[in-house]
Order: sequence, then C-alpha cells, then structure tokens
Amino acid sequence: MIIDIHGHYTTEPAAFHAFRDRQLAGLADASRRPSSLDLGLTDEAIVESVQPQLKFQKERGTDLTLFSPRAAGMAHHVGTEAISQQWTSMCNDLVHRVCTLLPDSFVGVGQLPQSPGVSPSRCIPELKRIVNELGFVGVNLNPDPAGGMWTDPPLIDEYWYPLYEALCELDVPAMIHVSSSCNPNFHGTGAHYINGDTTAFMQLVQGNLFKHFPTLRFVIPHGGGAVPYHWGRYRGLALNLGKPPLPEHLLNNVFFDTCVYHLPGIELLSKVIPVDNILFGSEMVGAVRGIDPETGHHFDDTRRYVDGLSGLSEESRYKIFEGNARRVYPMLDKLLSQRGHRPASLGVQS
Amino acid sequence: MIIDIHGHYTTEPAAFHAFRDRQLAGLADASRRPSSLDLGLTDEAIVESVQPQLKFQKERGTDLTLFSPRAAGMAHHVGTEAISQQWTSMCNDLVHRVCTLLPDSFVGVGQLPQSPGVSPSRCIPELKRIVNELGFVGVNLNPDPAGGMWTDPPLIDEYWYPLYEALCELDVPAMIHVSSSCNPNFHGTGAHYINGDTTAFMQLVQGNLFKHFPTLRFVIPHGGGAVPYHWGRYRGLALNLGKPPLPEHLLNNVFFDTCVYHLPGIELLSKVIPVDNILFGSEMVGAVRGIDPETGHHFDDTRRYVDGLSGLSEESRYKIFEGNARRVYPMLDKLLSQRGHRPASLGVQS
Repeated sequence: MIIDIHGHYTTEPAAFHAFRDRQLAGLADASRRPSSLDLGLTDEAIVESVQPQLKFQKERGTDLTLFSPRAAGMAHHVGTEAISQQWTSMCNDLVHRVCTLLPDSFVGVGQLPQSPGVSPSRCIPELKRIVNELGFVGVNLNPDPAGGMWTDPPLIDEYWYPLYEALCELDVPAMIHVSSSCNPNFHGTGAHYINGDTTAFMQLVQGNLFKHFPTLRFVIPHGGGAVPYHWGRYRGLALNLGKPPLPEHLLNNVFFDTCVYHLPGIELLSKVIPVDNILFGSEMVGAVRGIDPETGHHFDDTRRYVDGLSGLSEESRYKIFEGNARRVYPMLDKLLSQRGHRPASLGVQS
Repeated sequence: MIIDIHGHYTTEPAAFHAFRDRQLAGLADASRRPSSLDLGLTDEAIVESVQPQLKFQKERGTDLTLFSPRAAGMAHHVGTEAISQQWTSMCNDLVHRVCTLLPDSFVGVGQLPQSPGVSPSRCIPELKRIVNELGFVGVNLNPDPAGGMWTDPPLIDEYWYPLYEALCELDVPAMIHVSSSCNPNFHGTGAHYINGDTTAFMQLVQGNLFKHFPTLRFVIPHGGGAVPYHWGRYRGLALNLGKPPLPEHLLNNVFFDTCVYHLPGIELLSKVIPVDNILFGSEMVGAVRGIDPETGHHFDDTRRYVDGLSGLSEESRYKIFEGNARRVYPMLDKLLSQRGHRPASLGVQS
C-alpha cells in the first residue's frame, strides 16, 4: 500500500472557519464569543468536505493519508494559551471525525495546543488525549510557536524535554512543522516552512538530543527544507562541531518526507539521504496548488517523482511508500496489522 | 580564468579583532574606546594574513577572488548606527589594502553600514565611497540587519528603494548575505545563512521589484539556499501568486553562486537553474572548514564539484567560472579588460 504521511485538512467546512472568526473576535469583544463548541456539522458535510483529498488519492493511486489539521491554521501565536487549547481540541476533534468516517483513507495526526512562552509540558494532556482516546498515530510539533518571530528556545533546550518524555512514553513521532508566519519577511509556505525545517535540523546537529531520548523520532517535512541540498555543509558542520557523523548522530531518529515538488529534488533526496530515512508524503491539498506546466501534472503529485526515480529497488520503493512509515509510526503499524495489512517481510509490497 | 565571486576575509590580523573589542567595550565604558582608527598593521602583516586564501587559490587552481569583509563580522545588529558606520569603513579599508597589495588575487566587495531600523539610504555615502574611491565591484547587502530577529521590512519594500537606486546608478550588484545570528534558534552558517537566502528569494517572488529596477542585480549565495532543491515549489508558488514564470520574473536579475559543498548539490543546481545564472563561488576560508572524509578533499573546494559535472559544455563552464561574473559585475569586467584579460567571445576560455 502507499501511505502518504503528510496530509492536512485544508478543505474544512465553512462553519469551522466561522467558529474561528467568532473565537478570535471574542478576544476583542466577549459578546461575540461562540456560544457553543458544536459546529452543527453533519457527517455528510464532513465527508463532502474531503472529496478533493479522496479524488486525489484515487487519481494518484495512494491509499492512506496521515491526516492532520491545516498547519497554517494552528496559528499558535494568535490569541492566548486558552484560545490555543480550545482551538486545538476543536481541530483535532474534527480530524478525528474525518478519520472515523473514512478510516480506510485517513488516519489521524494531531496538533498541539502550543503557545509562545508557555511550557510545552502544557501540551501533554491534549497529546495523551489524541493518542489514547482518538487513536492518533503522530503529532505536529511547532518549533516556533511565535509564528516567524522565533522567540522560544531551540528544540534541543530542556524547555521541550517534558513533551519529549511524553512522546517517548507514547511511542509517537512528531513532525516538526511550523504554522503560519506573522513576520512579513517570511512568506508562509515559501519561506517560513522551509526555514523551519532547515532550522530544526541544524538545532539537532548542534545538540545531543537523541542521547537523552534514544527512541524519540522526528519527521522533518518538505524534504528536510534545505538540508539534503546542502548535505555536504551539514556533514562538515557536524564535524566542525565535534559531533559524530550525521548517520550516527541523527539518522536513527530523524526522517524526511518527499514533499519536494519536482523530480530533480526527489532525485537529490534519494541520492544523499539513506532510503530508511525517507517517507512518502505529498502535503496535498496544500502548499502549492495547480498543475506544473512543465509536466502537465500537479506540483504536489509527489508519487510521480518517486516513481520516476531510476534504479530504485522494489525494497527501497516499499520502504519509502509503506515500510518506513510503519516503522516510524508504530501505532499506525499496529492499526494496519489489526486490519490485516501485514508489513512486507522482504521488500515485497503488501 | 577562474573567478571566485564569494570569498570573505576571515583570517584578519589579531589587531583587527582587538580594535573591535575596544570599539564595543566603549559602548559600556567610554574610556575603553579605541584612541585611533589606525590598526598599526604593516603591509607585510596584511599579506601574511591572507596566505591561507592564497594557498587555497593556488592548490585549487582558481585565479581571482571577489573579496569582502567577513560576513559574520558585519554584525549590523550590534551597537549603534555610528558603531556600524565606523566598523564598516574599517572593514572596507582593510579589504581595500588586501586588494591593493595583491591585485591579481583579490578584487574588493564591500560591506554596508546597515543598522536595524535605520533607513538603508544612510548606506549610500559608504557605497559610493567603496565603489568610486576604493574600486570595489560589488557589495554585500544584509536582508536582516537585526541578526536573526528579522525586524526590518522585506527586500521588496520601498524602504530599500533609495539604496537600489544607488546600486543601479553605480551599476554594481549586491550579494544578499546575512551576518551573524543573535537568535539562539538560528545557527549562523547552518541555519541563518541558508534561511536568509531562501527568505530573500521568496520575497522577490512575491514582489515586482525588477519591474521598478530592471537593471538591479542580486546574487543569492550558498547556491540559493533551499531554492534550487525546491524549484518546483517556487515555480508553483509564482504561478499561485499570479506572477510570470520565474525565468521571466526573476532570472534576468537574480543569480546563484556554487557554495554548495557536495557534488549532488551542484548537480541539482546545474540541472534546474539556467547556466547563465550560476556563478562560481566557494566562500573560502569560511563556513565549513576541513576535509570531507567521503572525498578526501576540502568541503569548500567547490571547483571540484563543478569540474565533476558530466556533460558540461566548454561554453557553460566558461560562463560559470568567468563569463557570468564579468556580466553580473561590470566593474570587474572593466578592470579585467584594462588588465588585458578579454572576455571570451565564443565560449573559449580566455
């Protein structure tokens, strides 16, 4: 099967956005606060809302999407911690409804109720709820809850440790994914996302985080930002900083997705990053919409690029499309096994 | 000849750093201010200080380096505008002495006396001085004088226009190069530099700057940050933003260097970016020091990667190593022509 580990719910029903408007309006005028957390959405409306994703899944021949709330929508920098907590549980609940209604197409990944300057430990109850009660298999962790202002400590700071302890205890990986940018210097999907990936990776190079948390796993999206393109730079910087070689230093714990929207990028990724560290992802319907005039296909139809890799063995293909996802997301593996999808033992696609 | 358009003076004599210490100490205690701007450096000491660069030039078979003050040393975020002005003229004067003493090896590129929140127009007198009086052929422009805080407006904002007018009038290109980072989230050479490149490019995608300044030219260093790796993303975002295709929108005015420290990165760069937009650079002695254990050669010996490109025509090779630099830096071309190095007319190396 083909598992897309990076999909966001970017086609939410209008009622959802109306709720958010009222929630934020309530900051300025309490009388405008939403009177209820019930969006009044029918199951039919929810199923209808994800038809674009389902259509793309079908057309592209992918089977299952790890589905999380819209990344830009997390907007941890907006409002207060209480706003973030309320909004996050709403977003996660809505994703849960999608996954419950369409369990063969979507498995949940959550957002966390982060807030700038607020201890990440405050996210642990929601993390436990989405994993233990909603059955989510992963979570998105924002390395910059300040939305492009980068005022919180780096990911290797002990500030984050309580959350890492909870992730390890639950055996759930985190995708390191920023949200929208309120800094006019950083275009959201064109700069802030990619910078967030590059920044997070370099923080990990600088630290020794996985000595403290040997089972902690991070997925760095968008093909790892600038990292694979500058792999020589990062190998050299690790050396200059007195760190072990990157495979030993980071690659038991850090993984990259394939959200790179052209074949030469995916070719580079597969050339420099070990195949065990590459997970198929598309981020659809997401950052870049529309059809690439150079290929006649959607920019984010990343399956085509992976299929276009020459010399990719069946075993490597299996790892990228399914095997690595099952290894990095053990709860997903368990779920799929329960459903009768056994992992391939020798590189044969299940 | 082989022109390295990206070299910094990173082996300055100790007296230079001592001056900087006293200059900054003077902010806290006026009695510690340097009593003189004269560093007391002999010509011999200056020639001695650049021996590492000369040795690398010789070993690697490169001829001429466009030489600018240490990028991390610009530190526009430190101190006041007056400090930045004094420090900048010191840095530029020292580079000028190197270039005067060793004119066959070094041609000057300047730093600007930027300061966060201070109009870039205040840099124009120093810009004119280094071009008209010191014979510098280019300048480094810091898109984030706040050193990782990103508090000034984006490069497409009219805030920067007076400086662009001066650059156009002088017909001098700017390399968009950040300085050191005072934000603990951003490692200098591993995150801030690369993010700066990616951020600047995306700002240019968002705007229409070169409609206003059709002759303005920017070099984006470090192989363009994340941009070539994500070229499909940027092509798609330009489309989504209603901009012309990138070659038309930006590539008459935006150029990338080859400071990418492994062969697969340079292969990608040469595959996706038109050869007319690629300028040879190494950033030595710079960001990444030492020998790559995988190749046995210095990480920043980027000539090897360009030489390792298969199928590169003689004409393309000439463009990357010399021709494009002469086109993008017209004052350099003039200087070289005066010295009897005529540009190749038909792709034959001069």
